[in-house]
Amino acid sequence: MIGKVTVIGLGPGNVNQLTPEASDALQAADVVFGYGPYLDRVPARAGQRRRASDNRQEIDRATQALTDAAEGGSVAVVSGGDPGVFAMAAAVCEALEHGPAAWREIDLAIVPGITSMLAVAARVGAPLGHDFCALSLSDNLKPWPVVERRLQAAASAGFVIALYNPISRARPWQLDRAFETLRAHLPPATPVVFGRAVGRSDERVRVTPLSAADGSEADMATCVIVGSSETRVVERPNRTALIYTPRSNSAPIT
Amino acid sequence: MIGKVTVIGLGPGNVNQLTPEASDALQAADVVFGYGPYLDRVPARAGQRRRASDNRQEIDRATQALTDAAEGGSVAVVSGGDPGVFAMAAAVCEALEHGPAAWREIDLAIVPGITSMLAVAARVGAPLGHDFCALSLSDNLKPWPVVERRLQAAASAGFVIALYNPISRARPWQLDRAFETLRAHLPPATPVVFGRAVGRSDERVRVTPLSAADGSEADMATCVIVGSSETRVVERPNRTALIYTPRSNSAPIT
Repeated sequence: MIGKVTVIGLGPGNVNQLTPEASDALQAADVVFGYGPYLDRVPARAGQRRRASDNRQEIDRATQALTDAAEGGSVAVVSGGDPGVFAMAAAVCEALEHGPAAWREIDLAIVPGITSMLAVAARVGAPLGHDFCALSLSDNLKPWPVVERRLQAAASAGFVIALYNPISRARPWQLDRAFETLRAHLPPATPVVFGRAVGRSDERVRVTPLSAADGSEADMATCVIVGSSETRVVERPNRTALIYTPRSNSAPIT
Repeated sequence: MIGKVTVIGLGPGNVNQLTPEASDALQAADVVFGYGPYLDRVPARAGQRRRASDNRQEIDRATQALTDAAEGGSVAVVSGGDPGVFAMAAAVCEALEHGPAAWREIDLAIVPGITSMLAVAARVGAPLGHDFCALSLSDNLKPWPVVERRLQAAASAGFVIALYNPISRARPWQLDRAFETLRAHLPPATPVVFGRAVGRSDERVRVTPLSAADGSEADMATCVIVGSSETRVVERPNRTALIYTPRSNSAPIT
């Protein structure tokens, strides 16, 4: 009998942002695959097995999960945030496409979650309130010129930009290079939001103008949101400024 | 005493996708403002008042909520999906910016939710698995040439495109015009996902190649996802095809 793989979004990290659908799917699985720190967030259940793997072993992890399911297992694969956004759902689809034909009979389900940019945006107002894009700054899986081309296209067309995977030990210069590229297209006062570990105990949120944006503000747990020329900063007494992008557009077409 | 406004994301419609954080915030409010059909999803609580308004009265609704909070009320404003994505959070920020100075002292919180494109993507695989954008097709609040410019920029730079507000009785031609624009930049076989009312009893999900995409497949409750030239269609026996965008990019830079 063929089994099932459910790819589950854990949300940004606070258990209050885990949907009931995701909780139920976690409970139902016989074995849970995931990056160690994500597995640690999953409540224990008697008899359920866990298979931790390293952050960069997405395809291996997906392959193991599909192999288990092909033998009849009821398997969960967990992702931080939403599994469909720079995360495990695409890796599972990729492994399935290139795997044995029998894997196409596996019952594959994806359970969405709150992705990082939504949680970060909520903390500061509504920077994603109008057209926006989500872009991974990692050049492990695409050439850097593609990243640059997309940054230029998005900024010049007026999209707010959410940057995922902004920086890592192996990729130390890309975020500053991205800010440099964006400065050619956006006003110096454009707000940049650094949202780190939002919803967790070590949360840190900072807002800075693009002219002063510094890559060292970010780490691997950070999502960076760069406004458009329309994005507003509303100062408030005794509160942090509100950052939002109006629903209507008045910028000239460039 | 100054009050509080919490803008709450209800998710796509299934109560299983409402986060515990959102449930708790709904319970805590003394009065809930929202578009009628969204209010109908909120579980009743003794003593809690409701203020329904029409879909297009976002700024009026935001103004009323802030007025109540300025008088000390504990007010919730509900949105379908995520309040920060083409929804009420930006409207509340906008009303606050242009309202009385005292409103800047109101305790404003945003509770994120699963936005439509994430729920639709999850149903078919991982079409948002790599760089993507979210674009409102409504030209009520921005000129149509801005929409066209953004469609062209996004498609030619290789972003997958999620279209919000694709069609309405007052905007019948825009979606077909958008498909026409995109056909100039993307291969005919590019998959287009029409996800309607996902998670609700009247859910309907269809996938069609861009060459055959027809605006009449969509209505106001639909989110449309248009792949990039990288997006894959994986046929499966006895199952719907999987649609996903690989994590790595191999397209030429244009």
